[in-house]
Amino acid sequence: MTGRFITLEGPDGSGKSTALKQLIKLFNQQVQDNLILTREPGGSPIAETIREIILNPDYPEMDDRTEALLYAASRRQHLVETVLPALQANKTVISDRYLDSSLAYQGGGRGLGIDNVAQMNQFATENKLPDLTLYFDVNPQIGLSRIDQNREKDRLEQQKESFHQRVYETYQELYRRNPERIIKIDANQSKEQVVDDTIKAMKSRFPELF
Amino acid sequence: MTGRFITLEGPDGSGKSTALKQLIKLFNQQVQDNLILTREPGGSPIAETIREIILNPDYPEMDDRTEALLYAASRRQHLVETVLPALQANKTVISDRYLDSSLAYQGGGRGLGIDNVAQMNQFATENKLPDLTLYFDVNPQIGLSRIDQNREKDRLEQQKESFHQRVYETYQELYRRNPERIIKIDANQSKEQVVDDTIKAMKSRFPELF
Repeated sequence: MTGRFITLEGPDGSGKSTALKQLIKLFNQQVQDNLILTREPGGSPIAETIREIILNPDYPEMDDRTEALLYAASRRQHLVETVLPALQANKTVISDRYLDSSLAYQGGGRGLGIDNVAQMNQFATENKLPDLTLYFDVNPQIGLSRIDQNREKDRLEQQKESFHQRVYETYQELYRRNPERIIKIDANQSKEQVVDDTIKAMKSRFPELF
Repeated sequence: MTGRFITLEGPDGSGKSTALKQLIKLFNQQVQDNLILTREPGGSPIAETIREIILNPDYPEMDDRTEALLYAASRRQHLVETVLPALQANKTVISDRYLDSSLAYQGGGRGLGIDNVAQMNQFATENKLPDLTLYFDVNPQIGLSRIDQNREKDRLEQQKESFHQRVYETYQELYRRNPERIIKIDANQSKEQVVDDTIKAMKSRFPELF
């Protein structure tokens, strides 16, 4: 495998989609021609179907472990169908969310524990980790207030503030545990500053992309 | 938990549904009034939705690990929504398939390994095992020939004969590993004989049901 696998992490409302849009415009032509932008949960027909079940607000009875297993199933299919073939073809893959999201949301937010969720996910990922993770670090209140203004919330976004606080703290913990792999972007700043910091981080780690 | 949790295992075409129908007629009235007949994958709205994805013949690209994770997700939801509440209410729960099916079909048939699939499933079951498993042991050729005559095959039934042979051998291995929990019924016999043996096995293990 020679392509680069980059993931974006952080709560909704952290500005990661906006930063990504600006970032990829700056990649050189060869990288742009060999770029796969994808997302979890989803990114392939089976994975998108699983995504619909996970995020459906009509399923309040969904058990936390069911949710974690569905994310892992979607992750597996996305990895095998989308990510790995692109990496094998020497492409750059940028995925909006991957394993860390399950550790933060199900491990932390749902209280299942980082290590429990990580172990179960090994079955899905066979230990495939990103080469780089950009973590958009935003205070939960700020992140949630940005979502409120823009659109309807899905089943996970509807959770209480304490849930989002635990997600936030777990992302911090993941950052502490993986200082080599994860770069933290201060996403409490203005959109423009978040975009700038994202570009700087990528340029410092992968200058050959520009 | 005071209710009894009984599972039926074995390939399709083993006659387990027919045997079950005859068996439950013989239960005493109190047991019949407190009997939950259910099945995997499915048995609750979310679990049934997951079942549709798993068995959909239009998804030939489904990865084996995705399949195993979806079965585990469906199992978890079924356990939490259907099985555990019934056991807590002192009911008798009979489920057509449970954990052993994943060990046989994904662990054996798909070649993922019994122990790999068992470990991942611990996340789903939290080690909840049946009190008794009736394993309907049928030669794969005989089982498959019985299905052919009756109905269209789903995505798993469409697999090659070597797949079904591995499922068969894995069930044998599970039986060897769990002699206390699993009772083997010779399902190569006539329907009548299979029904008789099923009733005898249940009467010997749980006489108070009759």
